[in-house]
Amino acid sequence: MIKKIQINDARFPLGKGAGSDAIHRDPIYSYAVTNLIDDSGHIGTGFAFTLGEGNDLVCKAAAFYAKQLKGRDIEELMANFGAVFNQFANEQQFRWLGPHKGVVHLALASVTNACYDLWAKKRGVPLWKLLTDLTPQEIVNTLDLSYLEDELTTEQALHLLQNNQPGKSDRFQIIEKGYPGYDTSIGWFNYSDEKVRENCRKAVAEGFTAMKLKVGSADPERDIRRAHIVREEAGDDIKVMLDANQQWTLPQALKICKDLQSMNPYWIEEPTHPDDILAHATLAKAIAPTKLALGEHVPNRIIFKNYLQTGSAGFIQVDAVRVGGISEFITVSLLCRKFNIPVVPHVGDMGQLHQHLVLFNHIAMGHEALFLEHIPHLQQHFVHPVKIEGGVYKTPVEPGSSCDLKSLN
Amino acid sequence: MIKKIQINDARFPLGKGAGSDAIHRDPIYSYAVTNLIDDSGHIGTGFAFTLGEGNDLVCKAAAFYAKQLKGRDIEELMANFGAVFNQFANEQQFRWLGPHKGVVHLALASVTNACYDLWAKKRGVPLWKLLTDLTPQEIVNTLDLSYLEDELTTEQALHLLQNNQPGKSDRFQIIEKGYPGYDTSIGWFNYSDEKVRENCRKAVAEGFTAMKLKVGSADPERDIRRAHIVREEAGDDIKVMLDANQQWTLPQALKICKDLQSMNPYWIEEPTHPDDILAHATLAKAIAPTKLALGEHVPNRIIFKNYLQTGSAGFIQVDAVRVGGISEFITVSLLCRKFNIPVVPHVGDMGQLHQHLVLFNHIAMGHEALFLEHIPHLQQHFVHPVKIEGGVYKTPVEPGSSCDLKSLN
Repeated sequence: MIKKIQINDARFPLGKGAGSDAIHRDPIYSYAVTNLIDDSGHIGTGFAFTLGEGNDLVCKAAAFYAKQLKGRDIEELMANFGAVFNQFANEQQFRWLGPHKGVVHLALASVTNACYDLWAKKRGVPLWKLLTDLTPQEIVNTLDLSYLEDELTTEQALHLLQNNQPGKSDRFQIIEKGYPGYDTSIGWFNYSDEKVRENCRKAVAEGFTAMKLKVGSADPERDIRRAHIVREEAGDDIKVMLDANQQWTLPQALKICKDLQSMNPYWIEEPTHPDDILAHATLAKAIAPTKLALGEHVPNRIIFKNYLQTGSAGFIQVDAVRVGGISEFITVSLLCRKFNIPVVPHVGDMGQLHQHLVLFNHIAMGHEALFLEHIPHLQQHFVHPVKIEGGVYKTPVEPGSSCDLKSLN
Repeated sequence: MIKKIQINDARFPLGKGAGSDAIHRDPIYSYAVTNLIDDSGHIGTGFAFTLGEGNDLVCKAAAFYAKQLKGRDIEELMANFGAVFNQFANEQQFRWLGPHKGVVHLALASVTNACYDLWAKKRGVPLWKLLTDLTPQEIVNTLDLSYLEDELTTEQALHLLQNNQPGKSDRFQIIEKGYPGYDTSIGWFNYSDEKVRENCRKAVAEGFTAMKLKVGSADPERDIRRAHIVREEAGDDIKVMLDANQQWTLPQALKICKDLQSMNPYWIEEPTHPDDILAHATLAKAIAPTKLALGEHVPNRIIFKNYLQTGSAGFIQVDAVRVGGISEFITVSLLCRKFNIPVVPHVGDMGQLHQHLVLFNHIAMGHEALFLEHIPHLQQHFVHPVKIEGGVYKTPVEPGSSCDLKSLN
């Protein structure tokens, strides 16, 4: 039984230049943390990610949801978590502040993720193990599929999972091999050309076969120059992704994306405003076969559905610490599987949680095991930091979702 | 010069049943209020609307923006408010909490609206007068048109306003005549059939020529029965609008909207989730010529642009206390004018502010003077409550935007 709730505002200033992109010159990676303390002594930890200012607002909103969990048994809660999620997401007065987006939805992510963490810890297994052991029906019971009825009914979700049962045991091999990673830290926005070049070499030497550069400069020439530097250092066999962090207008994006095709990007990420579904659809059509990646700032399953329906996204970057937590992440992953679009999460959690979720997506849904973003910034703050060897995530073995923070333990 | 900032969390419990809809059984109409106190003694008041719980979060976020206005001169600020809005909306760490939606965007509305109110008070004129006296260039300077470049450039916005200058003096007649209202209070969700019937008669007797019923019940028969009660009492000449408050799935909406066509609704409002642009487009096509009204929960100009581009909306209900305040309301109204779609605001402000804005939309942009929602709930709390006579809003004459609250004066 959950007997105590703790909410913590955890902020971690970064080193100079690290984490910078075309919007965020000076981010403070922060977590709005929910701890659910069970009478068995287990502590379920979940969080949402923010960039500093306003992390306290998410904490306050998380407290509103979390207090309603006091006295609940975690197994009983998770047996029908879809209904709990739906109730929280539609709390009649709070809903106005979204609905299903912004501060309140980030808060829901924090609380939802704490529930899953507690669930896995009480069962004494890593989250990936808990999730991959669930039956299709048990998985569907954790999901809120409302407003997806035109694309994914409860029955269709169930069938999708059942149809992917056969290959499951083969796909379990990924547990031994580990999930491939890609390096986001070669080219933060404020890094000099020289530093980008040096980081590329280092990433290649470490075994990464994919890496990402921040673009979206006011000076398109800078973007193009730096993109070619990365291609030069990486060679033709390595996947290079470009991330514009929403800096372009649609007319600008149409032009510069075509210019950038000369260095053969694997994807172009967040070219323009994350709410502009039609602009992404127009752009995707114009620059095919180059693909767009998006989702870092998309708050819920309904908007993802629209992105998938318009064929705008070549890759979906849903983030379980941005949408309403693990439950909605799985919902969006099911939608993507239906549309046959790969899920490559943005990792506001620095990969701690998502290393579990991509294993689940691969094993239970048959999603391709493409690669998972790797950002090393907060390693020293986690009790069980991710382990990357030869550019590959080593499968975590500790019970829970790997989200425990040292400062809160 | 702005020398002091006050933020107030103002909550007003309503009478039994009032304000209820298919989602909100027990709302507490609340305002996150920003007061900007000028060294001339003027107090600029603006607010965002919420339904109670979480109003404090909006207040906290408003304080973050408002403190940055200390020491600024209001005329200097408003001469280039578009740039100020853009800067606030993209505050690098805070932006993550939206972007441009949820708690932070509601907070921006509160602060923005306080700026406009102070501006009008210092000039000693009602807001509608200030706005209609601005030149097209001065209006455009107050707007942030970023991410609209594919539909409305700065130059196009300017031309649109200039092209509507000729008929302006004729349209000023609305000031004398007053702007028509429609009655939202006949059919709140929790009212009995008898109360709905009685309220209809009262509204007709008071001179209203348009009124709205809440639908979206779990029991479609209830909706259909009540809709026909209203039509019966109102007769064929009165416009009757139906508001589902997002309660239907797309498959449900496709069915029930067709059933409801038998009572000839003037519009059907918020049939499904406010983020589901494509569902609205599908539905709009299926039930034409019956039109959809939407926008009460749409947070920003970019999503409105997508709704307009897909032809989903017959009426746009942008609310200046939900989007980023008056500035973004005007931006959305310009977009609507371009697409030739009427603006019929949702009035989270109880019409206090919007009575000014619809006059401006009509006079400066040539929008049809259709009608403005009227909700009488908070009349006793405003210093200058709206005046409705014979179903028509009397044009306000006091300086400012009519948003002063008694409790804070």
